[in-house]
Formats: sequence, structure tokens, C-alpha cells
Amino acid sequence: MKIGMVGLGKMGGNMAARLVESGHEVVGRDPSEDNAQNASKRGVEVVSDKQKLLDTLPEQKIVWLMIPSKFVADEVSAWLEILPKGSILIDGGNTKFEETIKHAQQAGEKNVQFVDVGVSGGIVGANVGYSLMVGGDLAVFGQLRPIFESLAQTGGYGHFGPSGAGHYVKMVHNAIEYGMMESLAEGFELMEVSPFPSIDYSKLAEVWQNGSVVQSFLNGLAVPIFSKNRNLEGIEGKVNMLGEAQWSAELARTNNVDFRTIQASIDRRTDSMAGKTSFATKFLAALRNEFGGHDINKTSEDADKNSLKNV
Amino acid sequence: MKIGMVGLGKMGGNMAARLVESGHEVVGRDPSEDNAQNASKRGVEVVSDKQKLLDTLPEQKIVWLMIPSKFVADEVSAWLEILPKGSILIDGGNTKFEETIKHAQQAGEKNVQFVDVGVSGGIVGANVGYSLMVGGDLAVFGQLRPIFESLAQTGGYGHFGPSGAGHYVKMVHNAIEYGMMESLAEGFELMEVSPFPSIDYSKLAEVWQNGSVVQSFLNGLAVPIFSKNRNLEGIEGKVNMLGEAQWSAELARTNNVDFRTIQASIDRRTDSMAGKTSFATKFLAALRNEFGGHDINKTSEDADKNSLKNV
Repeated sequence: MKIGMVGLGKMGGNMAARLVESGHEVVGRDPSEDNAQNASKRGVEVVSDKQKLLDTLPEQKIVWLMIPSKFVADEVSAWLEILPKGSILIDGGNTKFEETIKHAQQAGEKNVQFVDVGVSGGIVGANVGYSLMVGGDLAVFGQLRPIFESLAQTGGYGHFGPSGAGHYVKMVHNAIEYGMMESLAEGFELMEVSPFPSIDYSKLAEVWQNGSVVQSFLNGLAVPIFSKNRNLEGIEGKVNMLGEAQWSAELARTNNVDFRTIQASIDRRTDSMAGKTSFATKFLAALRNEFGGHDINKTSEDADKNSLKNV
Repeated sequence: MKIGMVGLGKMGGNMAARLVESGHEVVGRDPSEDNAQNASKRGVEVVSDKQKLLDTLPEQKIVWLMIPSKFVADEVSAWLEILPKGSILIDGGNTKFEETIKHAQQAGEKNVQFVDVGVSGGIVGANVGYSLMVGGDLAVFGQLRPIFESLAQTGGYGHFGPSGAGHYVKMVHNAIEYGMMESLAEGFELMEVSPFPSIDYSKLAEVWQNGSVVQSFLNGLAVPIFSKNRNLEGIEGKVNMLGEAQWSAELARTNNVDFRTIQASIDRRTDSMAGKTSFATKFLAALRNEFGGHDINKTSEDADKNSLKNV
């Protein structure tokens, strides 16, 4: 198939390249010259504006947005101005699900199909395949299968309901991720006060990764983190958030869902941003760097300012 | 090698059988006639008392205790009365690490080598191999390698320090496990209040299991749990604890380690035992049943009373 990829950063750029490697054609755009050049080297046809992107696509226009959530509303409106009837507009970012429901209504008024996809796997997913949580019309989901099949790990994509459902389950996914990360972080900090001589944390995470109940994607990343830097030296330990976990916590409050553990993991990050750092929060920062490529000593907000612009 | 396995229950019985399948010889004992018969059918030589077990072992006596932690102190003392010098006594249970340090001293006075092994993997580990965290003398660890190699998954065992270190890291492992379980449980409960029609949780866990950041042994178990029982019907949702997480939390308090997330997961279980149950605590009970074979509507204490006796 041929699709347009809007945003060729850490996520969009890798996804576009993965699609090209799987035999699809991808036309993309990104305001960053670096991102555009990298994508071009990896086989993505890079264009400079929306109309050129559209002109390059076949009759059936499929456009995938892979941009920071704060730019999504404007970008959706802009695309809906020019997309012909029967097009498919996909939002693969971390948009609030209530927003996504509105975007789908807006698209419907223009007879454009709107599909939301929660994408997990971070920079690791580029090589091993992503996990994709899809919301939207079931027939359109079926039409997009070849794309999902190429992006995802085997068994790693599914349809979970109408528009918004994909972003809803992705939002909850990220909240769970926060709780799991903090659980590991607290555990490794408790190792630090053991009466035993320096425990080999990298070896420990490796042993856990092979047969234990805490085996996990996240624990697996502890192996390289600690083998490179056993004492997490040079890591400040301020850990920022992107939104989904807090949205989940708000929703939990509104619906009287007991969310104490995930809430605690959110509070921990808030405290770390206020300077209350420790071995555990350094580990959180190292984890985010390992799977998401987030700058280890730079908060996400700073990183946003430096590397992401509205596309 | 030939070893003695004391306790042939869910863990000890499976481990003994796994050793036999790998070509080792195992002589075992268990006060439960059922456990003894099952083990016997799976190739374990079953004997009725300690002295007979010893007589059946070769000159180098290796005895592995796989019994509930509350019986360990008495059992260690009893074995140290009859084990000859140079024997190896292994505690594979969930003993408090401070107790283990004492047991190792006791053993040392009798010139018996004491080795502690934290065993993770539950009833699943019987088929795919366990994760083993070992403390004790490094040379003795080397001597026991053939046993660990057969019990563990590839890469799933390691030595983490002197006596007590194995039980220390296993204690922390279980605390992390509590936090991870509760994170997943809170996430699935938040799914219950979504505005979308019944989300297929089994499918969702499967998609997460293939490429997402929450991929984990625990999330993997959500696939069969929800495919068998989407609404967790018939599950009471009282979730008991065995001790390690609380020991971890005590130690965290003493050492000023911020343990808020894992503490919250412990409190949640305490509240559930007092009757504050929900979809999340039902999921916790289902998870424990899936990986540990814990009775789904029976607290661990009840189960202890019914099925376990001092061996």
C-alpha cells in the first residue's frame, strides 16, 4: 500500500522506515531538516507541504499523523480541509480519547474515515515491531490490515471499538506502565540498602527475565541500564510526564476507581520534578531513555521545545 | 546428581519431577499421601522419614527444603542434627533473609554448607523453567550448577552474594510483583468505566504482550484469565499475602526508602481482606490463581491450614 506519514521523528520516522522495509510506499513530511533527511535515506519519499503529499498518494488517500498530541487538533482540521471524501485519516499519537471522539465527528462531517491508533514499543519497536491498539470503523480497520501487519509484532495489533477506543486503551496502558516502572524502581532502591556486598543488578534483572513473575519488557531494559552504569552515575533523576497517566488518574477519580498505586507513581514523578530525586527516580529516567529515547537529564517539556514543532 | 527434596507440594513436587526428567535422581518426602503418590508416579523415590532419606543419598548429602516458611526454622534444626559434615542444606522457600543468615550460622557450626534459593515462576515454571536467585558460598554454588541448570530457564539462575542474599533479592522481587500486579489490576478496572462497548480484554492483553511496554509475565496471564471469564464472575476478590512484600515495606521504612507504590499495593490487599473488593481485586485473585495455583476464593491462610503441614 502507499500511505502518507506526517511527522518523521523518533516514532514516525522509524515507522515509515519499517513500512518501506516491508514493501509499502511511504510519502512523508517533517519540518525538521534532519528528520526529513534521515527518512529520505531510509527510502521515504519526502515532500515539503500537505498538498504535495496528497498529490503523491493514489486515489485512496491514507494519511497517518505521528505528531505530539498538542498539535493534533490543528493538524486534523487542516487535513480535513483538503482530504477528498473517502479518505482515511489516522492519528497514531497520544491524543486524549475525548478529543479523538470529536476529531472523528469532524472527519465524519467531511466523509473522511477517522482511525485512532495507540502505538507502544518506543524506539525498541522499530526493530522488533510495535503493539498497536486501534479504534474506528471495523471495515476500515480491515482495509488497513496490511499496514498494521507490517508495523506490529506478530499478534501485536487489534481493534477495540469505535473511534477513541484505541486512544482510551493506550491511555490506560501508559498508566499501567507508570505503575510498573515505579514498582521496579522502588525494588532496585531497596536493593541499595541490603546488608550484602554490591549486588549485580544487571545479572539480577537477567535472571528475573528468564522465568520469574516480574519478567517484563521494562525489567529487560534494566539489564543494559545496569551493565552500562551500575550506580546510575550522572543521572539527575527528574522524571517528567506526557499526560496519559494523569488523564487516567482524573478519570479514575471521576468514576470512583481506586487508583492508589498508579497515583503514587504519578506523585513520585511530580516530586522528582520538584527536586526530590533518588536512586529510584534515576532508574525511572534511565528506563525512559532506554525505551523512549527521552533525554536522560532533560525533562520532556524541554525536549519538546527543542526537537518538536508543529508539522 | 542425586538430591533429597523435602516437601513435594505444588513447588517441590514439580521441581523434583523436573529434575527427574533432566536425568537427576531425587528422593523425597511429604506428609501428604497425595503429594507423595503424585511425586512417586513422576519418578521420585519417596521415603517416609528423614533418616531413610539420608540413607538413600550418596556420600555427599544434598537436601533441598521446599516448605512453607513458618516451618523452616524447626526443619533446619532437625536436619542439622543428622546431616554429616560436608553436607549441603538448601532452603528454596520464602524465608526472611535475617532468618536465613541465622540458619547459615547454625549450619556453619555443624560444618554443613547452607544455600538459600529464591524460586520464582510458580506453577508455570514447572514447564518452562524457574528463575533462581542464589545466596551462599560461591564454590558450593558451582557444585550445585547441574541442579540449577536443570531447574532454571536458560539464563534463569545466578549467585548474588553470601547466605541470605538469595532470599533478600527474592523478597524484593515479590514486592515488585505486588506493585506490578496492582498496576495491571487498576488499569483493567479503569477499562470497566470506559464509554466504549465491552472491550475484549483478552485480545487487549494479547496485543500488549506482543511489542508493548507493559509486556510481562503477568500481563500474559491476563489473556487466559479474561478469555475464560471476561467479567471475573464468581471471584470473591479477597487477596491475601504471604509476607515478603510486607517485609520489604518494613525494611523500606527503616531505611527511609520511598516505597509508596508498592506500599499502596499492599494496602489494597489488606483492604480487600477486610471486604473492600472490586474488579481490580478480583483480577488480583485470578492472577494469583493462574501463576501460583492459589485457591481463587480461599485466602492463603486457609489454604495453608488445609494443605500444608510441617514436614
